[in-house]
Order: sequence, then C-alpha cells, then structure tokens
Amino acid sequence: MDEALLARFTAITGAQNALTPQTHDLTHYTHENRKLVVGKTPLVLRPASTAEVAAIVRLASETGTALVPQGGHTGHAGGGVPDESGTQIVVSLERMNFIRDVDPDGNTITAEAGVVLQTLQEAAQHVGRLFPLAISSQGSCQIGGNISTNAGGTGVIAHGNMREQVLGLEVVLPSGEIWNGLRRLKKDNTGYALKQLFIGAEGTLGIITAAVLRLAPLPKGREVAWAAVPSPHAALQLLNLSLDMAGPGVTAFELIHRTPLEFVLRNAPGSRDPLAQRHEWQVLMEISSGRSEQDARDLAEGIFAAGMERGLVADAVIAETIAQRGALWKLRDDMGPAQWPEGISVKHDVSVPVHLLPQFLERGAQAVAQAAPEARLCAFGHMGDGNIHFNVSQPLGVNGAAYLKQRQGEIQDRVHALVLELGGSISAEHGIGRLKRDLLIATKSAVELETMRAIKRALDPKNIMNPGKVV
Amino acid sequence: MDEALLARFTAITGAQNALTPQTHDLTHYTHENRKLVVGKTPLVLRPASTAEVAAIVRLASETGTALVPQGGHTGHAGGGVPDESGTQIVVSLERMNFIRDVDPDGNTITAEAGVVLQTLQEAAQHVGRLFPLAISSQGSCQIGGNISTNAGGTGVIAHGNMREQVLGLEVVLPSGEIWNGLRRLKKDNTGYALKQLFIGAEGTLGIITAAVLRLAPLPKGREVAWAAVPSPHAALQLLNLSLDMAGPGVTAFELIHRTPLEFVLRNAPGSRDPLAQRHEWQVLMEISSGRSEQDARDLAEGIFAAGMERGLVADAVIAETIAQRGALWKLRDDMGPAQWPEGISVKHDVSVPVHLLPQFLERGAQAVAQAAPEARLCAFGHMGDGNIHFNVSQPLGVNGAAYLKQRQGEIQDRVHALVLELGGSISAEHGIGRLKRDLLIATKSAVELETMRAIKRALDPKNIMNPGKVV
Repeated sequence: MDEALLARFTAITGAQNALTPQTHDLTHYTHENRKLVVGKTPLVLRPASTAEVAAIVRLASETGTALVPQGGHTGHAGGGVPDESGTQIVVSLERMNFIRDVDPDGNTITAEAGVVLQTLQEAAQHVGRLFPLAISSQGSCQIGGNISTNAGGTGVIAHGNMREQVLGLEVVLPSGEIWNGLRRLKKDNTGYALKQLFIGAEGTLGIITAAVLRLAPLPKGREVAWAAVPSPHAALQLLNLSLDMAGPGVTAFELIHRTPLEFVLRNAPGSRDPLAQRHEWQVLMEISSGRSEQDARDLAEGIFAAGMERGLVADAVIAETIAQRGALWKLRDDMGPAQWPEGISVKHDVSVPVHLLPQFLERGAQAVAQAAPEARLCAFGHMGDGNIHFNVSQPLGVNGAAYLKQRQGEIQDRVHALVLELGGSISAEHGIGRLKRDLLIATKSAVELETMRAIKRALDPKNIMNPGKVV
Repeated sequence: MDEALLARFTAITGAQNALTPQTHDLTHYTHENRKLVVGKTPLVLRPASTAEVAAIVRLASETGTALVPQGGHTGHAGGGVPDESGTQIVVSLERMNFIRDVDPDGNTITAEAGVVLQTLQEAAQHVGRLFPLAISSQGSCQIGGNISTNAGGTGVIAHGNMREQVLGLEVVLPSGEIWNGLRRLKKDNTGYALKQLFIGAEGTLGIITAAVLRLAPLPKGREVAWAAVPSPHAALQLLNLSLDMAGPGVTAFELIHRTPLEFVLRNAPGSRDPLAQRHEWQVLMEISSGRSEQDARDLAEGIFAAGMERGLVADAVIAETIAQRGALWKLRDDMGPAQWPEGISVKHDVSVPVHLLPQFLERGAQAVAQAAPEARLCAFGHMGDGNIHFNVSQPLGVNGAAYLKQRQGEIQDRVHALVLELGGSISAEHGIGRLKRDLLIATKSAVELETMRAIKRALDPKNIMNPGKVV
C-alpha cells in the first residue's frame, strides 16, 4: 500500500491509534477467533469518535480503499477479519466505548459501538433494568458487532434477537456521511426502515457507531433448572407446556445432547453432571417472573410436576442457590470451548421451525451417520427458537483434519439439504461473513441474491465497506 | 392512455377483473377514505394469483407504466390512491384473499395479501391462537396493506407493530420477478433483512402478495377496564404501575381526553359514559393473563387498588360481561368516525418517547391554543407506545374550512416542531403515502432522504411502483 495514503489515514486517529505490522503484533486484529481465517492488514485504525470514523470513511471513499469494521472479533463467520491481500484497513471500534446515556424512565440506553456487551448489561442492571441479550462471548464482544451480526443467544425466546433491542442507530455511511438515526421510539412509520438494513449487514453497508437500545424490566424472580427428557420430541412438548404455563416467563430453553455435556464434563475443570443418572437428552430452562421470587418458583415447580406426570421429564433439579444457578449456566456456556480439546469439527448453526426440530435432529443424525459414521455428533442450542448448533466432531484417535477433510463436503451437503427441505436457515445466528458466503450463494435464490447486491451497490457503489463479506 | 397497452394489461386478468371508468364506477378505488385525495385511473386490475401480479408488473416494467398497489384502502395518508394524471393503473389485491395455511403447531398462518384482517383474526381464533394486530378498520383493511404500512393499533404495547408479526413475505419485485421469502423462522441471519425493507414501504418497492405471520397464544383471561385519571402524568404513572404488576399482560393502554369522548357520546348512537362523573382524562386498559380468568381479574383489581391508593385513579370500572367489554372498546373504536359530524380537523399521528407524552400533551395543547384558540383539541391514542392522535377540530358555528385553512400551517408547524424537539415521529403509525410526503422531506435529514432514494432507485429504477408516494 502507498505510504502516503497510509499516512493520511494515520493522521486522522493520530499515530498512537494507527497500528501497523511494523510497530505492533496485529494478530489480535487479523485472526478470526478459531483461526479459520487469518488475514493481513497494513493498518489498524482505532478512532475515538464518530467524526473520526466519518473522516476515515470519507478518505476511503475518495481513494477507493477497502475498510473492515471490527468489534470484539468473537464472530464465527470471519465477518470482521481482513482478507489476505494486505490492502484492507481494519477500523476497530474498541475505543468508542462510551455509554452516552442511560435512561431508566424511558427504558433506553445509548451506547457507542465499542461498548462490551457485559458492560452494557451491568449498566442496565445498575439502574434496575435488564438488557436481555446474552451470549457466551459477552465478556468481550461489542454491541456494534452484536448489532451488525443481529446476535442471538439464550435470551431470544423471550426477548427476541438483537434486532428487537435496537430502537435507533448512528451509522457512518460508505460515502462518509453520518446518518443520525438515534431514535427512542416504539412507533415511527416515516419511510423505509433503514435501521433494519444495517442490523445484520455485517458492516457491508456502513459502520455502526452508536445505538439506542431498549431496556426491559428486571425480573423479580428467576429460577434455573436442569431436566432430563426422554427425547427431543418430549423436549418439544415440555417447551410447549412451559410456554402454556409461564408464557413470556420462559426466558431460556436450551436443548442439550449427551455428547456436548460429556465434552464439558471432561474438559471444563470442576464441572459435574447435575443429575445422578446418565441421560441422552437434557434441557436447561430458565423461568422468570415479573411478580415475585415465589411466583417464579411456583411456575418452575408446576411445570416440572406437570411434565413428570405426562412423562416428559425423567428427572430434574432446580437450582437452590445463586452458585448452583451459575454452575448450571456454566455447563451451557462451556459447550463452545469444550469442543476444542476434542479435535476439529464441522459446524452448522441452523434453524428450522421450532416444531420441526425433533424431526431435524433425528434425520440429521442419520445423515451424519451416513457421511461420517465414526464422528461424534455434538448437538445443543436454542430449542425455543428452533436454532441448534449441530456440530460434527472428529473421531478420537485419528487424524481429524484428514478424516473431516474427506467427509466435510458430504456432511455439510446432507445437513444443509435437510435444513432447506424443512424450510430452515443455514445460518440462524452466526451470519455469513466470509466463511458462509459460498454457501449463501449456493442456497439463496438468484432473485434474492441480486436484490441484496442491488442494495449493496446502491449504498456502497465503490465497494469499500467490508468487501468480500456477505454478498 | 394507449388502448392497445390497456388491452394487454386487461388480457392478464381477463376483462371481468379489469375495471375501467367506462364500465364501472371506480370511486371505490380512486378515493382515499376521507376523500382528501381523489385520483383518476384508466384501469383497475384485480389479479387472482401471484403469477398474474408478476405478469402485470413485468408488462409495467417493459412499458414504463406506473402501478398503484391497493389493499382495503383504509389508509390515512393516501398511499393506495392513484394520482390525478389518469395514467396510473390500480392493482387491487382484493381477490387474493386465500389463507394458504394455518399451522397451530408451528404458530404460523400464511395468507395472501387480500385477506381481510378480521378474517385472519378469526382463522387464528378458530385454531385456538391469537393474531394480535387490532385496528379499528379491521373489518375491511387487508393484511397486504397492514404489512405495507406497518400497521399499529391497540395491541402494539404487548405484541409490537405489524412488523413484529411478519415471519416471511412473498413479493413481486419491480422487475416482475417473484421473491419467495415465505419463511417461518424465528432466527435467520442469511444476508440483508429484505423483508424489513418491504414492510412499511407502502408499495413503493414491490407488491406484497403473501405473508407468513406469527400467531400468539390465546389469553386464558381478559379484563377490560375504564379508569378516570387526574392527568396525563398520572396516566403515565398508572401505565408504569400496570407494567410493573402485569408486565406483558398489559395488552392495551389507551389514553383518552374528554373531547373525543364527548364526540362519541354525542355522535355514536347508544354510547354512554362508563363513569358517573365527568372526568377530563381517562384510560381504557386491557389486562390479559396466560394463566386464568381469575388471574386476569386479580391483576386488574390489584392495579386499580394500588392506583387509587397512590392517587392515580379517580374512579374505575371493570367490565363484568362480554357486552360491557364490547361497549368499552366501542367507545374507543368510534373515536375516529365520531369526529366527522364535528366538522373538519387538522390531524396529527405523532409519537414521542413514552415518558415524554405528558409533556407533549401539555405543551402541544398550549401550541394549539396559540395557533387556533377557538379550535377543539381531540387527543386520544396509544399511550403505551407513546403514540397519540392529536387532532385539532374546527370550532362549531364557523366555516371550518376557512377557519382551518388560515391556521393549518401554523398548527402543524408548532405541533411538529414540538414533536421533533422531543425526539418524536411525525407519522407514528399512519405512514407517509402522499399526504405527508412534503412533511417527510421537510423533517428528515438530507442524508436519510438520499439513502431512501438510493434504495428506491436500486430496486425500482423505472419508478413504476407507486410513484409519488413516500420518497
């Protein structure tokens, strides 16, 4: 890259916030978290304000320079990582980490893109409110990235995806202009829903610099339970029973197969099976009440009593202490990292209509068994949303890379074909980024792809915003 | 218009579904419901299928013919009405009124655009589910129009706008291609959120032909109450109290000033004030319970007991019978038509952050009193969403048209300036259509307008889709 051009970019943030391979180890900024994508960049800019972001984008637009907006880079699709060309400048929002406003009366919080999710959750809690997005990377992911990927997680069943939390956005458009859409309104029918376009666009249509987010009431009571269920079909019936009895009080409903639980028990120090006997399928359930502690307890106990009576629950435990609650949640949160020591895997983040999930799990297991009979299926996820992480781990004692390389294509083809047959999504919450772009092209209709591209061309005619991602 | 071209369009639907001014009285299709907009059209096409709609749009694209998609034409902004040129062809979706699928297990309903909202509500109820969108025109408005305008109404507080009910869409794009986005998924992060762009676009980006809509559980108990409150500020505190006690069980919270109530009592036969004494402000509240009838009753009684204790409620009545419930709701539903016999009015459909609504009402009343001291302010609406219908009715005994013509500009300027100062929306639920297009241009930033126009040009380069509306 032209040194004079790099100097012009550097002048915008100042040299101390313009990191180069010559001066810094940029691994942190160029590697996707599982190292499936390793890119190169001549420059990492760390702007401190929307004005600095706008100046960067204006210069990029003027000079046709590609930019890669980056949050906490905890994504699973390589959306925030530069390519290998060494010509894409990374714009890290990490210094824009100011919470501009917390408004408990209006139930909103206004935060810059670089605020870490957990910081935001704590700021909400500090004023007696709940920010309901909960994902396992919440200690390091940033809300700009959460919005750009329309993050999901365990709270979606009751509160919706990140999309549903966003009231307003501030975005630096590919022209370098700033769109101030920081509204705090529940209703606003004045033209096209621009904010919806930027949510989930993975930085390909502009750089989100700040957002107004909705706050929910803090529940007055909360119970966390772990239940063994005879089958995914029984889990579905238990889900429906729970929703019938507790409605929006069902704030988490995670289905967990034995294999990912075994991975955690083996690899996460201090973990133990909450139940005395070994069960093939289990559910992690959270019940919240806006009324009282006792009401949450009564709801949870009522659900399990009715579930046992109907044969939907083989055994169950409700956490008695905050520590027990944390331990149950930790089993679930550890399921991602617990796969690492088990070798490599082929991952699918898929969704189907909720009531078809048992069918998907049964037929999906058959499909995997045909394509890779020795592999270990590691299925867990957000049953309440029809979203399952359907991962295929290598067998132990073999060369995992060689084993999976040979079978990966067939595994993915079979799983995705089944997903599409059931009207599902090949990327329920992780997005497209770079890793699933070919898959997107292979599975979307030409008319949908072309409509997306038309929008991309209209907003980013010079293709400087995260090129090579999504579309 | 060229007769040969009209004949080609006519051939698509057949002559019996191609109405012309020569053969039919087209008043029904060319007039906005309050007759504020009266257009002209050479042809009203009534296609019966998505394929017919696509053929119409292909021909329009080929020949540069303007199309005006139309639903139940109950809108308040003239979005579904052709202009005066006599060159815009109306495409009425009224014959596409087939409910393709009702799926209580998956909690979805798939309906064509021309299905009347009330028909959809009844189909949901028939399988034990709730379709929660409720607006006073539900007996004739159509779901294609509801989606195209992102309809609001009284159920938004608990269930969100129409946008939140839409899982998937089928759209005929301005090219004539059909986009099949009829998904039934709670989570799907595969590229740009195209459906969000068509929702609320008022037919300017394509013709919605069908939708997959989300169904909710039917509440097991429901109470409707009418309460007098000392002030809008007390109403806000009562709202917050209700949400604290009943959470998402607060399924309606409508604030009503005395004047619109008087209009109904005077003009709607059989109506009567639910309370013995005259009150300046009142609230219509609906409390639903997913648990039981008794639970809903307990919640409602608990809210009013606590509200009275805190001085937030002066008097209240909870409906004892289904007939009483209906009578309370009818008072609210009649508030639109009850304004007609009172002469003409200047209407505002505005929203502000919920907690700023009392401030808006106080300062808005002052603003109107300065601009039109003799006029009668008719304020009512969806307090739970911060959305109020803030209408200024002419004084009695004067020439209303002359009176308001002189003052309309100043009234609107003052009201909208206040709305914008409070970070509000100048069209909370009615949309832009044709009537508020100049207002949109006057109040949106240049960058937002230009971004909307860029999207419009990208998707509809020939400007054949409802030209002259929104952007």
